[in-house]
Amino acid sequence: MREITESDLADVARGAAVLGTGGGGDPYIGRLLAAAAVRAHGPVPLVAPAEVPDDALVLTVAMMGAPTVMVEKLPSVDEIATAARTLARYLGRELTHIACAEAGGVNSLIPVAAAAQLGLPLLDADGMGRAFPEIQMVLPTLYGVRATPMAIADDKGNKGVLDTVDNHWAERLARSATIDMGCSAMIASFAMTGGQAREALVPGTLSLCAELGALAASARDDHTDPVDALVRRLGGRRLFTGKVVDVRRRTASGFARGDARLSGMDGDAGAEMVLRFQNEHLVAERDGVVQVSVPDLICVLDRESGEAVTTERLRFGQRVAVIAAPADPRWHTPEGLALAGPRYFGYDHDPVRVSA
Amino acid sequence: MREITESDLADVARGAAVLGTGGGGDPYIGRLLAAAAVRAHGPVPLVAPAEVPDDALVLTVAMMGAPTVMVEKLPSVDEIATAARTLARYLGRELTHIACAEAGGVNSLIPVAAAAQLGLPLLDADGMGRAFPEIQMVLPTLYGVRATPMAIADDKGNKGVLDTVDNHWAERLARSATIDMGCSAMIASFAMTGGQAREALVPGTLSLCAELGALAASARDDHTDPVDALVRRLGGRRLFTGKVVDVRRRTASGFARGDARLSGMDGDAGAEMVLRFQNEHLVAERDGVVQVSVPDLICVLDRESGEAVTTERLRFGQRVAVIAAPADPRWHTPEGLALAGPRYFGYDHDPVRVSA
Repeated sequence: MREITESDLADVARGAAVLGTGGGGDPYIGRLLAAAAVRAHGPVPLVAPAEVPDDALVLTVAMMGAPTVMVEKLPSVDEIATAARTLARYLGRELTHIACAEAGGVNSLIPVAAAAQLGLPLLDADGMGRAFPEIQMVLPTLYGVRATPMAIADDKGNKGVLDTVDNHWAERLARSATIDMGCSAMIASFAMTGGQAREALVPGTLSLCAELGALAASARDDHTDPVDALVRRLGGRRLFTGKVVDVRRRTASGFARGDARLSGMDGDAGAEMVLRFQNEHLVAERDGVVQVSVPDLICVLDRESGEAVTTERLRFGQRVAVIAAPADPRWHTPEGLALAGPRYFGYDHDPVRVSA
Repeated sequence: MREITESDLADVARGAAVLGTGGGGDPYIGRLLAAAAVRAHGPVPLVAPAEVPDDALVLTVAMMGAPTVMVEKLPSVDEIATAARTLARYLGRELTHIACAEAGGVNSLIPVAAAAQLGLPLLDADGMGRAFPEIQMVLPTLYGVRATPMAIADDKGNKGVLDTVDNHWAERLARSATIDMGCSAMIASFAMTGGQAREALVPGTLSLCAELGALAASARDDHTDPVDALVRRLGGRRLFTGKVVDVRRRTASGFARGDARLSGMDGDAGAEMVLRFQNEHLVAERDGVVQVSVPDLICVLDRESGEAVTTERLRFGQRVAVIAAPADPRWHTPEGLALAGPRYFGYDHDPVRVSA
């Protein structure tokens, strides 16, 4: 894929929502935001990390906050680029490329909108190969790329720059500002050179999102199972098929936290699955036994259509398939696990990996 | 006074603590901070607002947070200028003068330390003629000078810039950051031209602080009453003499809030006074009747020495004199009262003014 046009957005958003593992925002909203920007400013050139010059200035842009709030409080197209402009000004350098911090229904599409608005190319890549809830949880952190200086902007016109001693302080100060700003804000962060972007990002994410979205759509057209098609492409495994029977959710400390209980159907009749999430699904337990955990991907899909169901859209009675897929191998290094393994999130067990 | 030398600092700090109306920080700490900077960098030239050129770039610097915490958590001399440097860099302009946002034992001295460190002149002026607890409560607000862009810096090395749509948003976002930063932080704000500084600031504040400090000291030397000397110089009134019998204090939402109860002595025997504070004293009630309220100054002084007693130093058994003094008349305009009158602080009554 050499550029993202308006007609690509539906597939990209749909595929990104799968990789978003329940978080990263609603694909319908992401698509709306990007479509408005692409319509106003034209298609966005897509550049492989390998093609980015060494002296490029790459920034990631994302929406930060609780997905439960994002659904109700959209940034205007004009505001999406504010954080990126504010950060470039603080750095005193000219911005050359936009990148995605994570994969997700909103957070893969916000960078499309920002790139369109700024007239800049977008990297076909992202910082995680999935979505995670906290700022510092990106692979660039493992390569010494700092989250700050970062810029933050809200829908009211407030903006700011944070320049912190480490990424945990960036997360803490940005989270407080996000809560004040109404639980969602635009951020620009992880300023990188082209060399750092090549090394630290996960290549090909936006192309993969487009491919996943198209796969699900064509499986539906062919009357084959979209869930199976997605599982195969991701090298993953179907964990469970069932009906949502309980969702406990609260918007706390700027996150959507909670758990969902599923009652088994089809081959899983009689069994129960519990999914624990903080914006993203972190742990999947079957009858009390952990099946898969972060950093591997746990994705909830509509059982028929294969559409991703984000954590804020989980509802009683939905028939869903839970699938798991392997994370970028760098997440399974000791440094990767320290950043986003189950123990970081408060689960007292080693990571349980998906085996295809 | 044409410059502030190390030997001036004790009087300046003592006088500033009187105008600090219980807030603005501890004068001993303010003096220590400024002395270290003046010793390292030399005396600080003092400039009257009338002498500042039109194209000057003036910033106010201050410590933000709960005075109860400031007592325990000092910035290093090197960090004091960080916020000012960060803001000048964000503005892309060269800083020419430092000013005090408020009068207070720390907040009149922090600007001395910042000016010494930056090698810049300090305005003999301040933004209130007293201390108030929230950022936007300065006279420059009445002249359309905005608190933001403002910079914030902490003792750990974190810094940031806030650029908000109004001063209430500046207060809100900076207060949250201050709380995260451990309930105290350095801020630089209210970037002004020389013309704006001449119009909006209260002139002569640092000279007045030095004079008040010297007055109290010489009254002690002459065995006359320092409290009377301060009351006369301020054109104020002695409200009460008594013993502190109860102090309720909590550090909430980044402020030191509470009230103090005094039991009358001397001519006030048998009467009771209650002081209500939010960092600063806001209301003084005698036997349930409001005697004086914001915006006028309510100052608690040691009954013998005339030394100001800050709200965080109020203790059972202290013998104190409560005095009141008129605020800058601009605080009594409808716009001034909307910003810092009793109703803003939640008291359902008109301001009660001191009458000498």
